[in-house]
Amino acid sequence: MRPSGRQPDQMRPVTIETGFAHHAEGSALIRVGGTEVLCTASVENRVPAFLRGKGSGWVTAEYGMLPRATHSRGLREAAKGKQSGRTQEIQRLIGRSLRSVVDLPALGEISITLDCDVLNADGGTRCAAITGAWVALRLALGKLVAAHVLRQLPLRGQVAAVSCGLTEAGPVLDLDYAEDSAAAADTNFVLTADRRIVEIQATAEDAPFMEDSFTAMFGLARQGVSVLFDAQTAAVNAAEGH
Amino acid sequence: MRPSGRQPDQMRPVTIETGFAHHAEGSALIRVGGTEVLCTASVENRVPAFLRGKGSGWVTAEYGMLPRATHSRGLREAAKGKQSGRTQEIQRLIGRSLRSVVDLPALGEISITLDCDVLNADGGTRCAAITGAWVALRLALGKLVAAHVLRQLPLRGQVAAVSCGLTEAGPVLDLDYAEDSAAAADTNFVLTADRRIVEIQATAEDAPFMEDSFTAMFGLARQGVSVLFDAQTAAVNAAEGH
Amino acid sequence: MRPSGRQPDQMRPVTIETGFAHHAEGSALIRVGGTEVLCTASVENRVPAFLRGKGSGWVTAEYGMLPRATHSRGLREAAKGKQSGRTQEIQRLIGRSLRSVVDLPALGEISITLDCDVLNADGGTRCAAITGAWVALRLALGKLVAAHVLRQLPLRGQVAAVSCGLTEAGPVLDLDYAEDSAAAADTNFVLTADRRIVEIQATAEDAPFMEDSFTAMFGLARQGVSVLFDAQTAAVNAAEGH
Amino acid sequence: MRPSGRQPDQMRPVTIETGFAHHAEGSALIRVGGTEVLCTASVENRVPAFLRGKGSGWVTAEYGMLPRATHSRGLREAAKGKQSGRTQEIQRLIGRSLRSVVDLPALGEISITLDCDVLNADGGTRCAAITGAWVALRLALGKLVAAHVLRQLPLRGQVAAVSCGLTEAGPVLDLDYAEDSAAAADTNFVLTADRRIVEIQATAEDAPFMEDSFTAMFGLARQGVSVLFDAQTAAVNAAEGH
Amino acid sequence: MRPSGRQPDQMRPVTIETGFAHHAEGSALIRVGGTEVLCTASVENRVPAFLRGKGSGWVTAEYGMLPRATHSRGLREAAKGKQSGRTQEIQRLIGRSLRSVVDLPALGEISITLDCDVLNADGGTRCAAITGAWVALRLALGKLVAAHVLRQLPLRGQVAAVSCGLTEAGPVLDLDYAEDSAAAADTNFVLTADRRIVEIQATAEDAPFMEDSFTAMFGLARQGVSVLFDAQTAAVNAAEGH
Amino acid sequence: MRPSGRQPDQMRPVTIETGFAHHAEGSALIRVGGTEVLCTASVENRVPAFLRGKGSGWVTAEYGMLPRATHSRGLREAAKGKQSGRTQEIQRLIGRSLRSVVDLPALGEISITLDCDVLNADGGTRCAAITGAWVALRLALGKLVAAHVLRQLPLRGQVAAVSCGLTEAGPVLDLDYAEDSAAAADTNFVLTADRRIVEIQATAEDAPFMEDSFTAMFGLARQGVSVLFDAQTAAVNAAEGH
Repeated sequence: MRPSGRQPDQMRPVTIETGFAHHAEGSALIRVGGTEVLCTASVENRVPAFLRGKGSGWVTAEYGMLPRATHSRGLREAAKGKQSGRTQEIQRLIGRSLRSVVDLPALGEISITLDCDVLNADGGTRCAAITGAWVALRLALGKLVAAHVLRQLPLRGQVAAVSCGLTEAGPVLDLDYAEDSAAAADTNFVLTADRRIVEIQATAEDAPFMEDSFTAMFGLARQGVSVLFDAQTAAVNAAEGH
Repeated sequence: MRPSGRQPDQMRPVTIETGFAHHAEGSALIRVGGTEVLCTASVENRVPAFLRGKGSGWVTAEYGMLPRATHSRGLREAAKGKQSGRTQEIQRLIGRSLRSVVDLPALGEISITLDCDVLNADGGTRCAAITGAWVALRLALGKLVAAHVLRQLPLRGQVAAVSCGLTEAGPVLDLDYAEDSAAAADTNFVLTADRRIVEIQATAEDAPFMEDSFTAMFGLARQGVSVLFDAQTAAVNAAEGH
Repeated sequence: MRPSGRQPDQMRPVTIETGFAHHAEGSALIRVGGTEVLCTASVENRVPAFLRGKGSGWVTAEYGMLPRATHSRGLREAAKGKQSGRTQEIQRLIGRSLRSVVDLPALGEISITLDCDVLNADGGTRCAAITGAWVALRLALGKLVAAHVLRQLPLRGQVAAVSCGLTEAGPVLDLDYAEDSAAAADTNFVLTADRRIVEIQATAEDAPFMEDSFTAMFGLARQGVSVLFDAQTAAVNAAEGH
Repeated sequence: MRPSGRQPDQMRPVTIETGFAHHAEGSALIRVGGTEVLCTASVENRVPAFLRGKGSGWVTAEYGMLPRATHSRGLREAAKGKQSGRTQEIQRLIGRSLRSVVDLPALGEISITLDCDVLNADGGTRCAAITGAWVALRLALGKLVAAHVLRQLPLRGQVAAVSCGLTEAGPVLDLDYAEDSAAAADTNFVLTADRRIVEIQATAEDAPFMEDSFTAMFGLARQGVSVLFDAQTAAVNAAEGH
Repeated sequence: MRPSGRQPDQMRPVTIETGFAHHAEGSALIRVGGTEVLCTASVENRVPAFLRGKGSGWVTAEYGMLPRATHSRGLREAAKGKQSGRTQEIQRLIGRSLRSVVDLPALGEISITLDCDVLNADGGTRCAAITGAWVALRLALGKLVAAHVLRQLPLRGQVAAVSCGLTEAGPVLDLDYAEDSAAAADTNFVLTADRRIVEIQATAEDAPFMEDSFTAMFGLARQGVSVLFDAQTAAVNAAEGH
Repeated sequence: MRPSGRQPDQMRPVTIETGFAHHAEGSALIRVGGTEVLCTASVENRVPAFLRGKGSGWVTAEYGMLPRATHSRGLREAAKGKQSGRTQEIQRLIGRSLRSVVDLPALGEISITLDCDVLNADGGTRCAAITGAWVALRLALGKLVAAHVLRQLPLRGQVAAVSCGLTEAGPVLDLDYAEDSAAAADTNFVLTADRRIVEIQATAEDAPFMEDSFTAMFGLARQGVSVLFDAQTAAVNAAEGH
């Protein structure tokens, strides 16, 4: 039995609320169970130095966690004076994941920064961040099309992420904090709606694991992301009044 | 006329939602017009080095702003590797303001950290932070009493803050961003419910101003904070089920 | 009785020595009792990025304290690798205060940096810094006029600062260190010679205080700055040979 | 055809030289084609704060690259004042990978730090670092056994890593720099000699990829690591005179 | 001819004023021509971690330069967030030089920090700092003897420093800024009153130089330091009322 | 007797291996006894800001030590976030030493960075770094001539460095770590093949020393560098196939 009483292949409830951030070109407050991440997309008419004059756009991400998003208060990274290795690893993952579905040349010399800030944490924050960031990005791109800055959406697909783990209950989908901190292995799957792989990060926490465990987790992830793709689509449609 | 159409002595709508942060001992999401600040109080059973063994408690504050809380995206302080002078100034103000109404020896060797994170900014974020932080602090202290850690609330009063400014419409109460960025002077008043002064910060933005302008702003502030004290009281009562 | 035996409305002796720094365009070593601050004005033919091409000048300030300016040695900020929140707060205050009396567009695309370094500290260093910095700035501007870089002084007035506090002896003027560390409230007044307000920072140290205490301190400050304005004028006249 | 003329399932030549570092308890200079990484294991009789008094040991890793290990000179991280996100990500991966095969409680209150410094880079430096670090760690543990500090090797297995990628030549094993910089996908496999998974990091560089590509790369990796396990065993045997 | 009209073996005027810093256990404001350095000695009843419990004392130094001590304003190191390589090199030299004449075990578990801050710079600041720091240190030690903390001065001698250089006028003593910036070689000699060598730093600026040039500079330095030893002795005698 | 059994004027064995770094324009792995330093020269077609447009080239150096180059592991400077004062002092010395023999205007607007990384340390690392860096620089310049970027070598001579010290065995040449850590004085001589002085750094470790000790060490150094000049010449000839 899982601590939450969920079935092995059962996601936590997912909601995506758009427009929470008043000023951002796109924003999504995603809730996956007790995890809440505010994702904003900020559009700027410039690109990093390495892209200047090449006619291509850029998508990047930053990740943060409010000090008391967690059970006990964590140090504020701005006060410590640096981002932890974990933070950098996560924001690099979010950036790569989103770039994999954007047609950067079609975007033109525009940068979009995806800020993903965790307001409440209960496991799976990086996956929620990727899933929410896609909605924020999609809405920002929609505005650029509506404003005739772009002729069409420079998007090649839809991306979402979910974690799976090996627990005492076997392979399970969408770990919460209680499961995550006790799991023997933890795997994050970043997948597209057309069933392709964007990124897989499988990590043995305590002891190396067998390939069939990996395969079982992959199968659960396929199920899980389909729920997320639906939630993303519904949120975008609601926001754009379709 | 004010950009928002408000009267000179009219506050923006104020709401205080408690419990937004799931894990904090006390939390308040305060909204003053378009400004939204999430305030959490975190209790820890230890005090800073300079207080160890003295039997006294400590209250401190940290302040942050999500990168896209503002009209255009600001740099993330954690990524820059340091907190700006403005951030430090504000968090020092919040800490001093709250400490002025806490009986630190009565608190005992306990630290309470007030994290004030701006989710949306439309002027007056430091005042909203102080006002919301008092609610978070009050709820956390209430829990310590309920848990018999403390015999009674180590609180000497209620503190709230509001800004006033000199604008084209004369002295006005509770500046929003449009007013703040154009005001000739900007004054923050941190006051107590028993009509005492905790802190006054009056600043000429463009040109020095006369004493009677200061007096007019002080009068407006007295009016404004009474609204905030009521909102604080209502939020605490609702949260504690009175 | 005050620790120093002074009357409540009595300033400490004030002297301002110009030319102490050999290379600066303007310099003033101000002594207020045992507090000594070396203020220099450095002129540069460029402005910060946000002002480039706008035809306006800039005035900014930096503040420091020698490690052994105080009773016990403090850590050197350059060695710690960052300026404290207190230092940043003070240098921002000095910069704002001086800018409030400069006609920046009339200055043209010139920057003036005011460095205020405390050689000996006995309370009131930020106020002494503002008062001395005005002299250094005034002398540097005088040289620009003498050199025909400017047609006339781009100065709208004279600014000085003094602290007042609530002590066991009641409201008193110009706190020294012994008083400052024991005061119930501490207020810094930055005022102009034409009786306007540039900045007021009133802070309850221990417990909130009443409005009439504030009013009494304001009255003392008005008296105190008149002494400072005279000392500034005398120093400038002596330096320029009037 | 691969740029190097290798077959898709062909590793580059692998050599592991022990004892290169004179002072380290264990060291291995691993060469995989043109990639050379010096791995040292340093034993210390203390553990990080979070483990003190718990009777368990610790294994951690740090990664660096000499500025001119690469085609064009990179900035020295010590001079820049911080480690890049990439560096931190890699050293966290190395640490996790090695810990997965160590019996930390059996190690006792001892820390082992694995320093992996790239002397020459030609793709696959993180995989070479993991593979070489295992040898350095194994030799250091062997010395602890020889010195009767430990009764037996606290090792649960042998770990090595290899990268695979999707290139114009299809799925290939052990990318060199020319392939790595042009690959459509890049996957690092950290595997054990008993055919378990320690970590998988699969990343789409340009565009998401299909599951069968992933499966093909996994198969190549299985082949590749068997070469590495043999090289590790030979190096340890030679060093210990078996 | 030298720019200043001095003879090759002629020092600039030297004065040492004690007591400039009000709070320090010893202080000396040394002036060597237009170079002015404020040196303070701060006594603390503790030693660095590496000396704890060993019964030995410690002497260390820190060096700084006010931003406008120089012809054009330099960046404030505290604002930049780090000390330059030059600053660190100089403060390490000052510390070593003073330690060479102190009997550290006789000092007992006491630390003395020598802060050397340049108020005005005209060449030779590191040499002036060493010479002035000896006076500050000597006075602080004298106070410890007077207070019966120490039975006798734990000093093995007197140390002073002077620079020499190769200029168009040949080898010269005590370079000022004009000479220093144009010299072909620059040598700092730290010597004791009993004619021993504490430190020599000889540097070719433009082109390597011959040994006889070095010998000539050494001879000049011997002459120069005798003037400094007399000035030190006179300052100490005046301060202690001999 | 010396710990190593060497004669007072006996160098340790010296070898210089070129080409160890695959990508650098010039590289030398120098071994002086148990000290091993990898020196690389990196050529870039740009100069620092202060030289831009002046037609002159630049040569600079950076120094580092692998964490386990020493008996006990040192902290990694990249992880600490700053280079120590010692590191900066050494890399400034290396840069100055090499620049003293380069004709910078003849180099043209080209920068050469010399990276000196200590792989194994047994005393004398800075001297080995200077000696090895000259070879790396010479080879890189040779390639620029071979590629017709330069018409001839912009080199005015050959530079090498050696340390001498005062030990229980009297003045000795080329200190190893055992001697270095116990020496009463330590002197680094940077000399040219035409018997000129580039830099001398003489430091009393414990107590000031007499001039004749200095003279004795200088004599030993002259002997020592002649061995190094031969090794440099042989390495260059072998690398260039003379």
